Amino acid sequence: MRGVFIAFEGGDGSGKSTQARLLADRLDAEGLDVLLTREPGGTDVGERLRSLVLDPAHAPIDAVTEALIFAASRSAHVRQRIGPALEAGRTVVTDRYVDSSVAYQGAGRNLGPDTVAGLNEWATGGLHPDLTVLLDVDTTTAAGRRAARAQAPGGTGPDRMESEPEDFHRSIRTAFTDRAAAHPERYLVLDAGRAAPELAAEVWGRVAGLLERAAGLGGLDLDGLDLDGEAGR
Amino acid sequence: MRGVFIAFEGGDGSGKSTQARLLADRLDAEGLDVLLTREPGGTDVGERLRSLVLDPAHAPIDAVTEALIFAASRSAHVRQRIGPALEAGRTVVTDRYVDSSVAYQGAGRNLGPDTVAGLNEWATGGLHPDLTVLLDVDTTTAAGRRAARAQAPGGTGPDRMESEPEDFHRSIRTAFTDRAAAHPERYLVLDAGRAAPELAAEVWGRVAGLLERAAGLGGLDLDGLDLDGEAGR
Repeated sequence: MRGVFIAFEGGDGSGKSTQARLLADRLDAEGLDVLLTREPGGTDVGERLRSLVLDPAHAPIDAVTEALIFAASRSAHVRQRIGPALEAGRTVVTDRYVDSSVAYQGAGRNLGPDTVAGLNEWATGGLHPDLTVLLDVDTTTAAGRRAARAQAPGGTGPDRMESEPEDFHRSIRTAFTDRAAAHPERYLVLDAGRAAPELAAEVWGRVAGLLERAAGLGGLDLDGLDLDGEAGR
Repeated sequence: MRGVFIAFEGGDGSGKSTQARLLADRLDAEGLDVLLTREPGGTDVGERLRSLVLDPAHAPIDAVTEALIFAASRSAHVRQRIGPALEAGRTVVTDRYVDSSVAYQGAGRNLGPDTVAGLNEWATGGLHPDLTVLLDVDTTTAAGRRAARAQAPGGTGPDRMESEPEDFHRSIRTAFTDRAAAHPERYLVLDAGRAAPELAAEVWGRVAGLLERAAGLGGLDLDGLDLDGEAGR
């Protein structure tokens, strides 16, 4: 009965927000009940915590405090939104989850990936995604995308994370790929340098398989669902 | 060179805020450089986190999220205020610290005292008070004091913690006294039912001894300090 839980992870400028939205749209078009959400945020409390951490006008926040605030936001997110949605049989797609904290605070800010993973295991009550899509992008490409976004009409300047130096983003990339390598059965790692529709097609192929298995286990009612349809329609 | 760090702990209505202020006033009168602070709060970030958790108008927050928010607030407090003040040789007096989380979230909300203690050991970087004054009060007396405060002119209604039922406050009291019993050398446990000036005198007696030892170790310049003066002047 429990729904399927999918997380999108990757560095800033990897295109994961776009892919999360494309997947949610596709699931919705297939008639599934979808919750598309994001971290940090996703709840009232989470949005307020998010603004505390990401606001560049704010006094600098140390790494430990930052990790605790993100864990608090995630805890609320799991208990108020993700968990209830999965219980109700909905498909949940989140833009960032635990791996972002392991990468950004654990590796980027040197708190230690295992320490941050342990903190988040407690914060989430051990809830892991059924699939994590990692959009892996080389750091030069990502920096170019962030710059383009900042200069676009209506674009905003970089937030506190995005304005970190290059080697910060490199250590984050390694942390993400290490997590995926440790649990390959739960990950889909994609080269984010490819075109968005191509990536969406690969994501859909993997998610369709996951939904089929869930349906086979009695977890979902997929009557009439076109599980091998083309991506991007 | 490092200053002395003193925490006041106890249930709501135990009178600890009054005692913290009386001690800070006394230290100030003795010519010491004092930082009087409180938790949750004590920093910009901390005050914003405090309002998130304690606002009764807010959506209910689960115990894990609450514990993480308090730990985040404490982490910022230690790194931005308490730590730098101690480094500068100031005497720091805080109204609540780690034991409040161990009692309220660990025992009161059933997360487990050891789990919450471990979380806070990480959040504080292992910074323990030189002395914790525990104002121990039976739960009936404390409830009466909270009610009186709420009905006083300008009094406000109970916050989210204060409006918890009686057995919540009882389990908290036990958690506080258990912590003190485990480290008697670092605690002064007082019956909070006694008069405020009497309590202040006992606190001052213990703190004066602590300051003398710190001075003997070269930690403080106490020339001309009246360490055996009467309390409450």
